[in-house]
Amino acid sequence: MSKPPRILLTGFTPFDGADINPSWETVHALDGRLIGGHLVVSRLLSTAFAESQRELSSMVDEVEPAILLGVGQAGGRSRLSIERVAINVQDARIADNNGAQPIDAAVVDDGPVAYFSTLPIKAMLKALIAEGLPAEVSNTAGTFVCNHVAYLMLHLAAQHRDRRAGFIHLPYLPSQAARLPDAPSMSKDDGVRALCIVLEVAATRRVDERFAAGALD
Amino acid sequence: MSKPPRILLTGFTPFDGADINPSWETVHALDGRLIGGHLVVSRLLSTAFAESQRELSSMVDEVEPAILLGVGQAGGRSRLSIERVAINVQDARIADNNGAQPIDAAVVDDGPVAYFSTLPIKAMLKALIAEGLPAEVSNTAGTFVCNHVAYLMLHLAAQHRDRRAGFIHLPYLPSQAARLPDAPSMSKDDGVRALCIVLEVAATRRVDERFAAGALD
Amino acid sequence: MSKPPRILLTGFTPFDGADINPSWETVHALDGRLIGGHLVVSRLLSTAFAESQRELSSMVDEVEPAILLGVGQAGGRSRLSIERVAINVQDARIADNNGAQPIDAAVVDDGPVAYFSTLPIKAMLKALIAEGLPAEVSNTAGTFVCNHVAYLMLHLAAQHRDRRAGFIHLPYLPSQAARLPDAPSMSKDDGVRALCIVLEVAATRRVDERFAAGALD
Amino acid sequence: MSKPPRILLTGFTPFDGADINPSWETVHALDGRLIGGHLVVSRLLSTAFAESQRELSSMVDEVEPAILLGVGQAGGRSRLSIERVAINVQDARIADNNGAQPIDAAVVDDGPVAYFSTLPIKAMLKALIAEGLPAEVSNTAGTFVCNHVAYLMLHLAAQHRDRRAGFIHLPYLPSQAARLPDAPSMSKDDGVRALCIVLEVAATRRVDERFAAGALD
Repeated sequence: MSKPPRILLTGFTPFDGADINPSWETVHALDGRLIGGHLVVSRLLSTAFAESQRELSSMVDEVEPAILLGVGQAGGRSRLSIERVAINVQDARIADNNGAQPIDAAVVDDGPVAYFSTLPIKAMLKALIAEGLPAEVSNTAGTFVCNHVAYLMLHLAAQHRDRRAGFIHLPYLPSQAARLPDAPSMSKDDGVRALCIVLEVAATRRVDERFAAGALD
Repeated sequence: MSKPPRILLTGFTPFDGADINPSWETVHALDGRLIGGHLVVSRLLSTAFAESQRELSSMVDEVEPAILLGVGQAGGRSRLSIERVAINVQDARIADNNGAQPIDAAVVDDGPVAYFSTLPIKAMLKALIAEGLPAEVSNTAGTFVCNHVAYLMLHLAAQHRDRRAGFIHLPYLPSQAARLPDAPSMSKDDGVRALCIVLEVAATRRVDERFAAGALD
Repeated sequence: MSKPPRILLTGFTPFDGADINPSWETVHALDGRLIGGHLVVSRLLSTAFAESQRELSSMVDEVEPAILLGVGQAGGRSRLSIERVAINVQDARIADNNGAQPIDAAVVDDGPVAYFSTLPIKAMLKALIAEGLPAEVSNTAGTFVCNHVAYLMLHLAAQHRDRRAGFIHLPYLPSQAARLPDAPSMSKDDGVRALCIVLEVAATRRVDERFAAGALD
Repeated sequence: MSKPPRILLTGFTPFDGADINPSWETVHALDGRLIGGHLVVSRLLSTAFAESQRELSSMVDEVEPAILLGVGQAGGRSRLSIERVAINVQDARIADNNGAQPIDAAVVDDGPVAYFSTLPIKAMLKALIAEGLPAEVSNTAGTFVCNHVAYLMLHLAAQHRDRRAGFIHLPYLPSQAARLPDAPSMSKDDGVRALCIVLEVAATRRVDERFAAGALD
């Protein structure tokens, strides 16, 4: 009997002084689940430009995923953000966890300016709203390690006909927001539920036919 | 054996076109619980100036509470707001559920300009933060039905030596935020957990000694 | 010939590490103007609880104003805030300019819980909006030195039949916002124009008849 | 004597029910100015996908600009946004001024996913902050007509060795914010001053050497 196709689902280590990262908390909870006929393989990436690139590369070699979904923390956002696009730039306001702070550098030297997500972002959005989860399509994943990993996932996926990729940002967890002056948050339970919904849609639907702007060949 | 002292815990009906109100969802879930040696009696108030006043008056007569805690919805706030003060004004931006829209009217004609909460707001805040729940002390409950009920509770409590009162605002529920352009929210589970913590503190602690500004006799 | 009645218009010194305070920048620009038949006397208050109280007291003795208008900085607000109420509490998140940081203390030991503004706040709001200036009625002046001075002005005014008082918060100046992560601002020119409009209304109109909640005798 | 090189500076017509657009108010004020040795030619674009494309094309043919700077309104932003990137998508939340509402369509059918600005965005940012004007580099120009025009300008500029382009978003004007619930704004004077600074930098400096990610050959 054949093995199911795999989803590589990544979260990040805490950064910027935090001791927790909602992305890993939720991603971790889904490791080993079978969603939409795909096996979820959860992996932890370092919040560091160079290191996450090496880690991602070896994870993809090992897991051979049909779908790559990166998950990151977007402190200050009030809802789950389904990223539409990743851009070929590293421009860090703070140092990463290894002390690197690239300014206006490229992610991939001869890569295109940007990639569109190759997951069905509008169908994912619709499914989340239908389940009462606050979500939006976002047009920027920033220019820190999240966008870097999103770009790399899409760059790697672009080299395989049957590999698709995307990225999602989560708000702070309530326990993080509790220690900040005034920040929105989403509970871990809702984050986990949202990822399940999103992966189910990603695993069973192609990119929306209407969404043709360079996203699919 | 004597009956335990009672907490009158109130939530509101949905308003402004909504079909749910996080205050009643969370308040309802605590009905009949014993917290800090007090029995919680949950009651639903109309989001209407005149009607909520009549309802509150008869609830207090019936329940004879030691503690009154009003809970309301503060759409747009990202954290649980423990109200410090209620002011003697009705100034409605929208009509209430009975079509009334008082502008710059008094809650109680000869009442004082304001009342401070007589619950230990700082201890409540500290307990919530310690449990990882986003919370703040707020200095305004607005000028709609929430402030109206908060003022009335404190007005009623001021006439009994052993009766204390306060008010708390909750953010939208995630299911409400899902249908709004960009609004923070708090899960029902966290809301219920927060009310338990707050009531435990209210039931077992007096107003903070340092908080003496008119709050206690 | 009799001297015109006077308006005591106060601004604050910079605080919390800033080197400028929009309140004094705008207040200073109006010193000596004749507005609505009143002479504007602009004065600078220290952003410090005890010192501002002494300063205000001696300014009032000297100027004998018919109208007191305090102006302060509300960093983070996007529009001019006409304060409706001042409360009898000092609760400082940061130390004032003299290092004092009162927590839950009273402004005036036996004073009432709060005072409503005795200026025509709704007419002021209407005039500002009509002139294209972003403004709102605010229901909290916070619990730092601004609220402290607002409360003191209203406390002093309450002792004279013909003395009225109020408080207004200004957003950051653009030059302040330029150095902050993401803060709204209002230009100095618009701030000055707004104060002129507000003072014209305050000098020529009584409190709105509809606004009777303790605001006027 | 040779004619100076030209800057094509565009603003938009009001949209979404507004009767004014800060972009045209400020852009219009600079028509005919000589900045950094360049002549500013101000032109008005329709807030409509198809029409703005035709208009822009004929403006470029007529003006033959060395620099194209599009200016638009970003309601809700608190500071001037210097856009880093434009993406090849039209995804309209509301209908444009001609009733068109493309969803997930391409701006240019076989165009690249995105273009980076070819103006020195970091030098522009630095100059604005130095002059006390609130500004930021933004990583999304949205997916409405602003991004559409930004993409088209960069697409057109990419076909000329000596043509550079970029896009800037302005906050609401104060007179717009005055009629909205709670929106940040920037005065017209500050907007005009900001555009002068930005154009001076654009006219006299090349793209930052550090910013090499696809922005320049």
